[in-house]
This record gives sequence, structure tokens and C-alpha cells, in this order.
Amino acid sequence: MRILVLHGPNLNLLGQREPNVYGVQTLDSINQQLHSQAQALGVEVVCQQSNHEGVLVDWIQQAVGKFDGLLINPGAYTHTSLAIADAIRATGLPTVEVHLSNIYARETYRHHSWIAPVAVGQISGFGAASYRWGLAALVTYLQQSSAHSPST
Amino acid sequence: MRILVLHGPNLNLLGQREPNVYGVQTLDSINQQLHSQAQALGVEVVCQQSNHEGVLVDWIQQAVGKFDGLLINPGAYTHTSLAIADAIRATGLPTVEVHLSNIYARETYRHHSWIAPVAVGQISGFGAASYRWGLAALVTYLQQSSAHSPST
Amino acid sequence: MRILVLHGPNLNLLGQREPNVYGVQTLDSINQQLHSQAQALGVEVVCQQSNHEGVLVDWIQQAVGKFDGLLINPGAYTHTSLAIADAIRATGLPTVEVHLSNIYARETYRHHSWIAPVAVGQISGFGAASYRWGLAALVTYLQQSSAHSPST
Amino acid sequence: MRILVLHGPNLNLLGQREPNVYGVQTLDSINQQLHSQAQALGVEVVCQQSNHEGVLVDWIQQAVGKFDGLLINPGAYTHTSLAIADAIRATGLPTVEVHLSNIYARETYRHHSWIAPVAVGQISGFGAASYRWGLAALVTYLQQSSAHSPST
Amino acid sequence: MRILVLHGPNLNLLGQREPNVYGVQTLDSINQQLHSQAQALGVEVVCQQSNHEGVLVDWIQQAVGKFDGLLINPGAYTHTSLAIADAIRATGLPTVEVHLSNIYARETYRHHSWIAPVAVGQISGFGAASYRWGLAALVTYLQQSSAHSPST
Amino acid sequence: MRILVLHGPNLNLLGQREPNVYGVQTLDSINQQLHSQAQALGVEVVCQQSNHEGVLVDWIQQAVGKFDGLLINPGAYTHTSLAIADAIRATGLPTVEVHLSNIYARETYRHHSWIAPVAVGQISGFGAASYRWGLAALVTYLQQSSAHSPST
Amino acid sequence: MRILVLHGPNLNLLGQREPNVYGVQTLDSINQQLHSQAQALGVEVVCQQSNHEGVLVDWIQQAVGKFDGLLINPGAYTHTSLAIADAIRATGLPTVEVHLSNIYARETYRHHSWIAPVAVGQISGFGAASYRWGLAALVTYLQQSSAHSPST
Amino acid sequence: MRILVLHGPNLNLLGQREPNVYGVQTLDSINQQLHSQAQALGVEVVCQQSNHEGVLVDWIQQAVGKFDGLLINPGAYTHTSLAIADAIRATGLPTVEVHLSNIYARETYRHHSWIAPVAVGQISGFGAASYRWGLAALVTYLQQSSAHSPST
Amino acid sequence: MRILVLHGPNLNLLGQREPNVYGVQTLDSINQQLHSQAQALGVEVVCQQSNHEGVLVDWIQQAVGKFDGLLINPGAYTHTSLAIADAIRATGLPTVEVHLSNIYARETYRHHSWIAPVAVGQISGFGAASYRWGLAALVTYLQQSSAHSPST
Amino acid sequence: MRILVLHGPNLNLLGQREPNVYGVQTLDSINQQLHSQAQALGVEVVCQQSNHEGVLVDWIQQAVGKFDGLLINPGAYTHTSLAIADAIRATGLPTVEVHLSNIYARETYRHHSWIAPVAVGQISGFGAASYRWGLAALVTYLQQSSAHSPST
Amino acid sequence: MRILVLHGPNLNLLGQREPNVYGVQTLDSINQQLHSQAQALGVEVVCQQSNHEGVLVDWIQQAVGKFDGLLINPGAYTHTSLAIADAIRATGLPTVEVHLSNIYARETYRHHSWIAPVAVGQISGFGAASYRWGLAALVTYLQQSSAHSPST
Amino acid sequence: MRILVLHGPNLNLLGQREPNVYGVQTLDSINQQLHSQAQALGVEVVCQQSNHEGVLVDWIQQAVGKFDGLLINPGAYTHTSLAIADAIRATGLPTVEVHLSNIYARETYRHHSWIAPVAVGQISGFGAASYRWGLAALVTYLQQSSAHSPST
Repeated sequence: MRILVLHGPNLNLLGQREPNVYGVQTLDSINQQLHSQAQALGVEVVCQQSNHEGVLVDWIQQAVGKFDGLLINPGAYTHTSLAIADAIRATGLPTVEVHLSNIYARETYRHHSWIAPVAVGQISGFGAASYRWGLAALVTYLQQSSAHSPST
Repeated sequence: MRILVLHGPNLNLLGQREPNVYGVQTLDSINQQLHSQAQALGVEVVCQQSNHEGVLVDWIQQAVGKFDGLLINPGAYTHTSLAIADAIRATGLPTVEVHLSNIYARETYRHHSWIAPVAVGQISGFGAASYRWGLAALVTYLQQSSAHSPST
Repeated sequence: MRILVLHGPNLNLLGQREPNVYGVQTLDSINQQLHSQAQALGVEVVCQQSNHEGVLVDWIQQAVGKFDGLLINPGAYTHTSLAIADAIRATGLPTVEVHLSNIYARETYRHHSWIAPVAVGQISGFGAASYRWGLAALVTYLQQSSAHSPST
Repeated sequence: MRILVLHGPNLNLLGQREPNVYGVQTLDSINQQLHSQAQALGVEVVCQQSNHEGVLVDWIQQAVGKFDGLLINPGAYTHTSLAIADAIRATGLPTVEVHLSNIYARETYRHHSWIAPVAVGQISGFGAASYRWGLAALVTYLQQSSAHSPST
Repeated sequence: MRILVLHGPNLNLLGQREPNVYGVQTLDSINQQLHSQAQALGVEVVCQQSNHEGVLVDWIQQAVGKFDGLLINPGAYTHTSLAIADAIRATGLPTVEVHLSNIYARETYRHHSWIAPVAVGQISGFGAASYRWGLAALVTYLQQSSAHSPST
Repeated sequence: MRILVLHGPNLNLLGQREPNVYGVQTLDSINQQLHSQAQALGVEVVCQQSNHEGVLVDWIQQAVGKFDGLLINPGAYTHTSLAIADAIRATGLPTVEVHLSNIYARETYRHHSWIAPVAVGQISGFGAASYRWGLAALVTYLQQSSAHSPST
Repeated sequence: MRILVLHGPNLNLLGQREPNVYGVQTLDSINQQLHSQAQALGVEVVCQQSNHEGVLVDWIQQAVGKFDGLLINPGAYTHTSLAIADAIRATGLPTVEVHLSNIYARETYRHHSWIAPVAVGQISGFGAASYRWGLAALVTYLQQSSAHSPST
Repeated sequence: MRILVLHGPNLNLLGQREPNVYGVQTLDSINQQLHSQAQALGVEVVCQQSNHEGVLVDWIQQAVGKFDGLLINPGAYTHTSLAIADAIRATGLPTVEVHLSNIYARETYRHHSWIAPVAVGQISGFGAASYRWGLAALVTYLQQSSAHSPST
Repeated sequence: MRILVLHGPNLNLLGQREPNVYGVQTLDSINQQLHSQAQALGVEVVCQQSNHEGVLVDWIQQAVGKFDGLLINPGAYTHTSLAIADAIRATGLPTVEVHLSNIYARETYRHHSWIAPVAVGQISGFGAASYRWGLAALVTYLQQSSAHSPST
Repeated sequence: MRILVLHGPNLNLLGQREPNVYGVQTLDSINQQLHSQAQALGVEVVCQQSNHEGVLVDWIQQAVGKFDGLLINPGAYTHTSLAIADAIRATGLPTVEVHLSNIYARETYRHHSWIAPVAVGQISGFGAASYRWGLAALVTYLQQSSAHSPST
Repeated sequence: MRILVLHGPNLNLLGQREPNVYGVQTLDSINQQLHSQAQALGVEVVCQQSNHEGVLVDWIQQAVGKFDGLLINPGAYTHTSLAIADAIRATGLPTVEVHLSNIYARETYRHHSWIAPVAVGQISGFGAASYRWGLAALVTYLQQSSAHSPST
Repeated sequence: MRILVLHGPNLNLLGQREPNVYGVQTLDSINQQLHSQAQALGVEVVCQQSNHEGVLVDWIQQAVGKFDGLLINPGAYTHTSLAIADAIRATGLPTVEVHLSNIYARETYRHHSWIAPVAVGQISGFGAASYRWGLAALVTYLQQSSAHSPST
């Protein structure tokens, strides 16, 4: 089982600036934790980050046939990118959306997600741990889906 | 560490009717799984369900001093109860909000949560597993909070 | 055939105060008329009133297996209770919604009903007679449904 | 006592097409049932259908002095015709509004009725039976109104 | 100089019913006053009433080449008919819009006029006198327009 | 019979600048025409202009007992001054609102008038002639009101 | 294959007035072009125009069994007529909606079409050529539909 | 003269938690101050708190005939309970609404009160003193009402 | 302790006109009562009224260093004046806002106050007594503030 | 005459996945059909696809001087990209917008197009044939434009 | 070249109170800096402040013929005064709008400016330096305008 | 001191097309002027343009440690890119936003800027000179910031 992990815009800055806001953990560190967790779960993860909406769409499209699921933190594109949502919809890739911060405790314009309606589920507010529970939830979801008939 | 698990209105019907919609798992079964998971995590859980907004507020208030955190699926009150949100705000009880279904893939009026802004985080869309990741996330959050200075 | 009749908040005040607004007929009198009408129709009715949203949800849940249909005047909860609507949706109890006054000739906030989308139909504006036509319509609906295949 | 029954646009298609949506009952059949019911109630009904907003306004105006009440299913004009509502308001003809489908369970733009605020009451969702309860409710309303002082 | 006077839906009921609301003056009486005033002004008026949006559009179209201006009280179609506004726009007929009542002191949905943006001006609130000032204003406008270069 | 004529902000610039927009007629010229018309009607007019909302409120208050009616072009305060509307409401001075331009053919924010709901009527779009028909309409209204019982 | 072509309100004025806005081509000329094109395509067209919403609804209803498809430019009724949309929905007649002008480059209230959701497709902005591509598209659609199973 | 004092949800937590937000004064202390003030004013007060919307409705209904006025801080139900507002409306109990905090300086969703339109008046922002001025204002209002004819 | 009392537009008309609406008490009478109450409380009040937004802003600015608090009924400027709110914000003068009528039981546009968010608190609906409780509340607030550290 | 054909995000997936939704025709197949049609029309087409908003803007800019017109299906960027609309506006390239599906029969957020106001026209709902009619319409438009004076 | 500098309400308080918010620089100091800058630029400035909307309108009107341009910080009137905007529009005085604070980083109601659409440009967020760049920009604009044909 | 100057989408077209709209000055010319101005101010500027949202985000991120401030004209991304705003927020780079045109005098959708709330200030409407005052303002801001403690 192979999982694609996508980080959206500005997430590459994690840990480098404003540690009081973004925490001291870097994106590399999060990715390493995901690799460790994946190993423990017996799955494989590939982690990529881009500030480009189009690149994220490209990667989601290219994941078809290569990955079984998508774990995505779309960053600011959560709130502005219908193209990414359409890519998930079109590829049918089972997707879990995660957010470091609790987006519902922030500005109103961060309460709406274009991605959520096409995702299996959404996890927000647990910092780097959002990725952890997201990966666990996605793997469990995929295991149950493959055990039974494909869900809609 | 003691966790209060609250189920809101109509969740007592789980598994009894409309299994194609709500799944075949009953609320008792979910509660038993939470107890097992709690035991494995070395924490204690108490699970309660009510159809009454006021009872849920009562229970949250009474949890002060007896519980370290709150795992709540507020059901329909997610979208209509400021009183429950105020109870969480007033008691300061660390709270994780969970939903069986992906509320962002449903009717628009289910996209707004009064609870989310006062919760640590929100997990929705993984069926009964939402509770599972919610409990894990809450316990991890509480362990980290007690290890460090109290978070805001 | 057994019909549960639920009266929502403040309907117990009928006939006791402000007769120019609410008429001189008490809720007891309406209930007695419903019993007489039920007898004539060969069905049984049980009438209950509560000011508590949670109690109304409890009663709707408990009606499963005991009643064949629900005749409800949700009073103010018509406009604020998603929990009652979800209870009707979850139990699948065929429901007719009635209102004494014509809610569309009153304040704008009384024009929206959470209950209507999950009801078979709605009757408003005929005073106590709204219950009368509501009971007749519900019984006819149930007779036709049982004669044919179950409707959705 | 004479009752005018008006059917709005597209209701003449009933029973001829899409029986799974509109049922197998034709408008003629509904009209015949209304005539039978009227005979049983000791009143007279005249049934007319038009696709023209202006014709419906004409008929409502011409009903003054000839009819005691109006039973109307305004079809699509329910949601777009202030002219019909003004005709009812100007003539003061006691009016009951009926709908075959539960308009509150359909598209949002079908939730607003221009007619409802000027009607005695509204009945929706019971198929052809909506007319039946509507006629019964209108006749009862007119009998009570003539027995007492004229209502506002 | 020839002026077409158009009365919209329900204005034919003037003076016949609800004199406390609509006054005791009939539409015939208003038309006679307009004829007298026209004679005094040395112009000709033709007065017509219809409850049909389409008929009003027909008449406006047919006025081209036969009339120099249009005095219109569009009644309820003021607030719902883009077709009448488009007819005025397309024919380029100089138009004055009048209302018996002060539409800005009534329900909010009567505050918006589709006709006003394509009219020379609007007069509302003076009862039958709104027509009087409207005719005077239209004739003056046309006299000034013909004296100078055509206005836009 | 004495009529107070009030001109709101920027109307003192009439005829001095942008004649293609505002016409070549100055405010003095309009006032002189109103005086001539008043003489012909056998009434007296006093004309005043101010750019100050407070001054306009003062003048309306001071008109009580000295004037029988108010002819007002509130200029930009039409759209922003509840204080002027409240002054008219509080003094009960019969008021006609006039506008040089057709405010409904301009920017959306000029479509709402705070003054209109407390005026007898409104005339807009006839240039300086709006004042002329406004004065005529006000005087006629006052004559009819004094001849009969006071209207509401 | 027979196609009904319906032109809505004010389209009969084409070419007669404001040629700089509406072009010099009359509706007759457009109809003749459609007849020529139909002949070339081996289909038959019948072209009708009305300013009456009700007449357009009548014609759509009467087309059932006589025509295979509908090409409609609903004019102003595009934006105000639910009745026409319901007629198309009820008859199930495959429909292509066309507009001379690009309605999305005009006033905001012309951006919403009641007809579009029940049409196969919409073509706007190409002047008289909108009809041409609309007829071609409709005929192609009908040929493909009849060749295969009926599309949804 | 007897006054019912009702405290809504979460007000029982006053003084026990978050003293920097809610102050150090407990609800018991507020109630004692109200008793002292009542004694000084020569009236009687009964103070009750509930987290249940339905219980608050029950208490308001039961106050009829036993109490002369209602002093209420509806807490979160201020913003969500039409049922409580309807209870006040239906019982006709003269009511003063009070709030500890200035609700207009807080979140937008706390700016709307369902209760205010059915109350005599509202006092907000003075902490525990809001109750004090509320009781004084209610008693004065009731004394003046009983001295004169009943107010509307 | 010195308190500035400001009355906004049209409040100078109190008691002179429409006594059934505004009561028989004049503004002078209210001011005299405030002076008596102030004497009893051992404070000084200065009362001023203006119809000018700018004058009210001037007076608030000039109060700095001369007055300890502001009691204001901003009249219509409550709903339209950000300048007055900014003056209170900029001067930091502790302010209590009062209204004679219950503004929440009136037109929707009177429900929003620009002043409330910068006031200590708001009292509305008690007629002239609103000033009385407002003065008492302001003096108590100032006494407590001076006894402790300055509030924010 | 040279036409640039641009396909927006996710259109490269056509025919590869979800054939029941997107049809079995691939983007290559559509491009080949366009080439054939172009040859028949005596024009040249160049077809390009990108998931990148910026790349689409680049291509539109680079088309200046190389292409005579633009045929674009902007995919999801239809609804979110002002940058693409500005590129078309800035380059002045005559543009036809096409959509495979009827965007007005889909989610509300797909009803608004940033591109439409700067396009000559829009064609939606005819599947791959939308491109076909779009190319024909664009070529005809360009031929007519070059034959006459440039249209606005 | 002569420039009128207008400061709106509450700007006279600058530097006197809340230096942490408004800075320590007084309005006099800003005016002196503007005089020095003007001297260096070879232009003349006259600086005036008022809390009165009407006075600001007066001054703008009186500037015609005496000043070449207007530099204005309208303070709170930025967001509420159409009268000031109309004065600028009517006089045609080239205007630059400045703000000390970044109004787009403050409350939502400060994001809309009535003045901006009639200004040459807007500068906000640079504290006292906003005036500096505003004066420089206005002088440059005027120099370029006088060198070439008058801009629109 | 080093300043990064970023030009958003379509700004590379300046001076090449539509000189009446965009002026005759090319982007190169603007950049050269900025270089000259920078030299005069003793700072260094690097100017870059991209049509890609992602590239702009990349450049802002890469500016950290290399540049002291950012001067940006985000073009169309002003109104649609939360990602660019988040990049500025995350990097903390002092930013001045400039616009050639007065965006508040254009379409409503150009009035909202995602960038403004995270910028020091905004300058719009002065054509190429907007950059000039923007660079001056940014350099002054940075000099003052480095002279004192860091501003928030």
C-alpha cells in the first residue's frame, strides 16, 4: 500500500520561522515521522511539497495507478482551489485532508474547504499530530475498503 | 487520566435502524471499543448519551475536576447549540469534536459547527473510527500539555 | 394503526391566556377532538406535550415499533431544532407537520421549518382544524402506504 | 356555497407524462374527485386550469360575487407571481393554497410562496389528497366564518 | 402628441372593493380625469388596462409610431417583470412610471422596480393624483425633448 | 399655506459646474421658479440649502407651527440620514421628496431612500421640473387634507 | 425530425429598431436562415414568437408528440420564468437555450437563467449565429440520442 | 409584588472558574444581593438557574399568576431560543433582559437577541450590576403599570 | 465626579409633539430629574442636546479632562455615526448608552448600534427611566473603577 | 487564420477514468477532431493543456501576434481565475469559452464564470461537441470581424 | 499651485491621547511637516480640520477656483459620508485620500471607502508618512495633468 | 538595504498593448525608474515578474534573509490569492502593496485585497508613480523600523 503525502503552499517554512506560531518542528521532521509511522504500519509514503496549485494538481493526477491514497494538507489552497478538488474528484483517489491548526478557530475565510467535500474525512487542529492521525485513518480506511466492496 | 465521552442527540439509534446509512455498529459497540482502546492507552473513559442540550451542558459542567478531557460528537447540536460551546469555553475542558460522517460533504447547514472554535481539533468522516482517532488525539494532546506549560 | 401526536413548547397554554390570539379552545379540548376523530377513523392516538426539545426527541425515538405515524406541531422548535428533524429522519416515522397559525403570514423567521423537509406534508393556518386535517391526511397516507410498497 | 378551484401552469400535464413523478392520476380525475367531494359536502365547485398568470388573475377577479372561496394550486406561479397574490388580496376571496408535492423538500427556490401570506392556510405534500384536505378545510373555514362575524 | 396610458394587474378593481384602502375613485373615473387633463394640455390619451404581462408588452410594442410617450402604472409587474422593462428599453418610448401608493412605505419587495431604470422618472404616493402629475410631467418632458435635440 | 423648501448637500453647486451633467439652471433660478409657481398657487414658499445634516434637522424641527408642508431634495443625505427621516417622522410635517435625477437609474446605493417611507410621496427624474410637480403635488395634498379629516 | 423554435418577448422587434444594438437582421430573416439550415440538415423547423409567458408554456406543452426538440431564446423570461422551465422539465423535450447577446457580459440580473438547468446546453453571445449553432447542436444531440440509449 | 429571576445556561459557573473573565462573584452572591435589594424595595424575588431551555420555558409558564414580572439573563439561549421568547410572549409576563457582559462588544452572533423584542427593556455590560439595575427598572416599571392603565 | 449627558438628534422634541408616542415628559424635565438624581448621588451633570453629528463629536472631545464619564442617547446617530463612536474610542471616556424605546422591538435598522461596542454598557426600553438607570450605572462603574486599577 | 485551443486543469484525464461521467473520448481524440474540423474550415489549430493557471496565462499572452483567436475550456479555473480573464482582456484576443458539461445544471459555484464577461460567447453542455460548435462559432466570428470594422 | 489639506473627525486628537495607538505626533506637527514639504515642492498648502461632515463639504465646495487639488483624510466619514464623495465628484477637484492606519487590516466596516471611487488614488497605512506621500503624489499628478490634456 | 519588487500576472504586457488603458510605459521602463530611484535612495532593488501564483510564493519565501522588504503589485492575484498573503504573513517580510489603477474605482470584485491586511500599507491609483511612492514609503518604513524597536 502506497500513500502520497502532499503539503501545500508555505508549509516548507515550518520550523524555520515564527516557532511560537508554527512550532519548532520542520517539514522534514514531519516527513520523517510519517516515514517511521508508515514503516510501522507496513505501508510506503512519498512526501512532496509545492507552492504551485498546478503542480499539486499534476502530482494528484500522476498518483493514479502508483498510489492507493492521498494525505493532503492543502494550506491556503484549501480555501481557494477548486482545481485541486476536481483533481481528487476526477482521479477518485481516497483522500484525507489534514490541517495543523484548527481552521474553525481562525478567520472566517478559513472555515470553508473546497477539498473537504471530496475527501473521506478531515482532521484539523492537532499540529503535526494531525498528519499522524490522518495517515492512520487513511490506512485503516483503505484496508477496510479493500477488504470489502469499494465504497462511494 | 480520565476522559468523558459524550454522544449527542439520535446517536443512541446507531446500528438499530438504517444500517445502510448509519452502519451496523451500535453505540454500545462503539463505547466498548473506546473502553478497550482506553485500557490500551492507560486512561479511563466514561461514555454517556443524551438527546437533551441541557443535559449535555450539565455533564460538561460536572466534568470539571473529575475529567481531564472531553471527546464529543454533538450530533445535531453541533449546528445549533451555543450553550454547549459556552459550557466548553467556560469549563476550559480540553475537547476533541468528532463526527461519524463527513459533515462537509452533506447539507450546507451541517458545515458550521458552534463547537469547533472552542475545541482543540475536529475529526470527521471516518465513521466509528472518528471516535478512535479522536480519543487517541485527545490523550496525546493531554499528555503533551501536562508535560509542558498549559496551552491556551 | 397507532398515531403519536406531539405538541411542542407553549402549546399547553392554549385557551388559558390571550383567547383573542390563541382562541378559546384548550389543548385538552384539541386532544379530545383528536381522540374522537381517531375513533371514527378506527385508529388510536396518544397525545403528549413538552416544552423540552430533548423530550420531544426522546418520544420520537421511543415511538419506533409502537406507533405507525407522527402528527407534530413543533411550535417554536419548528424553526430552531435540527435535532427533532434528525430524529424523524433517523426513525423514518411517517410525519405530518401542522401549525395553528399560517406561519407564512407571520414574522420571516417563522417561514423556515427544519421539520418540513423530513415530513410527508405540512398543513398550516386552520387553527385547531389544522390538527384535524393533519390526522386525516396522515391516516390516509399510512393506509395507502401499507396497501402498496413502502414509500421513501 | 360555491368554490372556485384554480390549477396553475403545467398541472394539465398530470398523469400524461412521467407517471413515476407526477402519479398516474390526471387533472380530470382530480377534478372529478373534487366534484364528488363537493356534492357530499353540499357545495358546488368549478375547476379551471391555465398556464397564463394573467388568466389566473382575471379568473380570481371575476370570482367576486360568484364564488365564496378559492382553492388554488398556483404551480410555478407560487414562487414568481405577486400579481396573483395581489388579486387575492384585492378581492378578499378566502383562499386555501395546495401543492401536490412537499415544496419544502424540494429546491430552495420552491420554499417561498407569494400566495401563502394572503391565504387562510396552506397544505402541501399529500399528492392529489392535498386538494381533498384543502377543499374540506376551505368549506369548514367558510361555514365557521359565515356562522360568526367575518374574520380579518 | 399622443400618450398611451397603461394600467397593470388588479387596477381594474379600483373603487369597487375596499374603498378604505383603494379609495372610492374607479379606474374609469381616473381615465376620464386623464382625458380632461389631456384635452386641457392639447394632447391625446388612450387608456388601457390588462392583468396580462404579455398583453402589456404587446401594447408597448404596438405603441411605436402611434404614440409619443407612455404613462404606466405597472401594478405588481413593477416588481417582477423584466419583459415589460425590456419592451420599454427596446422601443425607446419615453416613459413615466406612476404608483397610487408610496411603494417605499410598503413591504420591502415593493421597493424595487424593474421599470424605474428605463423610465424618465417615477412618481409615487399621491393616489389618483400620481397619474395627474405623471401626465403633466411626461407632456412637459416630450415638449422639451422635441424642442431640443433628442435626449438619451 | 406656507411651504418650506429644503435643498440638501451640493445642490448649491447647480448650474455653476458641469452643466452637461447638472444642467445650466442654478439653484437660485429653481428657487425663483418655485416662488412664481407658489404665487400662482396662492401659497408661500421659503427656500433654504445646507450641506449640514444637523442644519437640515434643525430647520425641519423649526418648521413646526410655521409651515404647512415640506418639499425636500435631501441630496446625498437621502441615502445616509436616518436623523432627517426621524425629524420628519417626529414633526409630522407632510413631506414630498424630490430628486433631479432618476435615482433608480444610477448606482445601487442611490436606490434606497431613508426619507421615502416617511414622505407622502416621491418624484424623481424630471430635472428641475421634479420640484415643480413636487410643489404642485404637495399643495394639492395639503388642500385635500385640510378639506377632509387628516389622513394617516 | 421536427424542431420547435421559440422566440420570447421583444424578439419580434429585431432589426426594426436600434440596429446598432440589435443588428439589422429581422426575426423573419433569422427564421428564414433557420429554415434553410434545417433543410440542409434534413430536419423540419417551426418558428414562433410570443411576448406571453403563458403562450410559451402552452406551445411547449403542445409540442409533445409533435416535435423532437426545442430551440428557445426565452428573452427576458430567461431570468424570471420558472413556469417555462417547469414546462420543459415536465414535457422532457430536449432543449437548447440560445441568446443573441453574451448575457454574462451584461447586468448581473441577466446572469441567472431559470431555463439553463433543464436544457441540454446553452449558447450565448454570437448574435443571430447563436441560433445557427444551437440548431446544429440540438440536431446532433438528438441524432446521437436516438442512435444510443436515451441520455439522462 | 413578586419577581422571578431566571439565570440561563452556564451562569451557575460564575465565580468558580476563570475569575479574570467572569469575576470573583458567585451566582449565590448575586442572588443574595438581589434578595437584599428586593427587601429594600419591598418586593419578593425567587432566583433559579437552569442549563435546560425547556426548564426555563416551564418556569416562565408556571410563573403566571405567581409572579408579577420576570428578570432574565438567558445566557447562550439569548441567541438561539425562540421557545423562551414565545413563552414570554404567550404569558405576557413583563420581562427585563440583563447581561453581565456587553454583548455588543463581543462576537457578532451575540448581537442578536430573540428575547429583546418581547422584553420591556434590556440592560447589558455592567457585570453583576446589570441584575441590580434590571431589578430596579422592572420594579419601577411594574409600579407605574399598576398605577395606570395596562401598557402594551 | 462630573458626568456629561448628551442627547442626540430630535430628542429636543420630547413632550412637545406626539405625547402618545414620546410621552408627556419634556427633555427639560428629564434633565431636571438627572440633576436631582446627580445631587443625591453627589455628582455633577451637564446636559446638552444637538441635532449635529459634528457638534456631538466636538463635545465628546472637549469633555476630556473636564468630565469623568459620558451618558449618551445618540438618537438616530446610534445607527449611522461611526464618527461619534470613534470619538468615544479616541477619548477613552467611560460611556453608557441609553435609549428611551426598546430599539430591538423596532425596525431592523435600529438594532445595530455603532456606539454600543465602545460603551461600558447599554440600557434601552425604559422611557425616561433609561437615563435614570444609566446615570446610576455610570456613577457606580466610575466609583468602582477609581477604587481599583483602571479597566480596559 | 490560426486558433489557439486551451484546455484547463484535469481535462487531460478525459476518457481515461470514469467514462460514465466523462465519456470514453480522450483529449487526444478531441484534439484530432478539432484538427480535422480546422482543416475543413481552412484554418489552423494548436491545442495545449495545462493544470497551471500561470501557464495558461503565459500561453494566452504568447498567442498575441501568433494566433487570431482563442478557444478555451478553462476547467475549474473558469470559476476561480481572474488572472486568466485579465490575460484575455489585456491581449484582446477574441475568445470563445466552452464547457463539456452544462455548468448551470451543476453545483451553484460552477454557475459563475470569470471568463464569460471577456469572451465573445459561451457554449456549454454538449460534451465534446461543445468544442466543435465553439470552433465553428469562433471562426465565423473572426471571418465576419475581419470582413467588417472591428467589433467591440 | 495650491493644495487644500482636510483632516476629518477626531484627527485633532492626534498625539494628545493614546500615543501607543496614534503615535506621539500631533496634528499641528503633521501640518508643519506638510508646510515644509510644500515649500520644498514649490506649492502652497492650507490645512484644516473639522468634526463636521457639513463643514468638510462646505470647504470642498469653497475650494473651487482657490485650490488645485485636495489631500484628504476623511477619518470616520470615509466609511459613512456620501455627501463628501458627492462634493468631490461635483467640484471635480483632483483628490488624494490618505489614512494613517492600514484600514484593510482593521474592522471590516473600515474596508469600504465612499471617497476612494472619486479620488485619483488612495494611500493608507504609513502613519503620518501617508500624508507625505499623498502630497507628493498629488503634486506630481497635478503637474502631469497640467502638462498634458486634462485627465478624466 | 535590499528590496524585492514583484510584479504579478499580466503586468509584463504593460506598454505593449492598449496604451490608452495601460499607458505607454513598459514594465522595463518602470523597473529602470525603480533602479534609478533606488540608487538615489542608497538601496538596491531586484525586479521580477511572473504570471504564476506559485512562483510568486516561491520568490517571497526565497527573499527571507536576502531582502529587507517587498514591494508588490499582485495584479489579479490581489483578489484571489490567499497563498501569497500567507507567504507574506509567514515570512514576516515588510511589504508595501501598489496598484497602477485605483482599484476602488473599478469592478466591485477588485475592491477586496487578500494582500492588504498583511501589508504595511497600500498605494493605488497613481499609475507607474504608485511604484515610486511605494518604494519611497517602504524604504522610509524600513529605516524607521531599524532605527527603533521592531514594529508589529
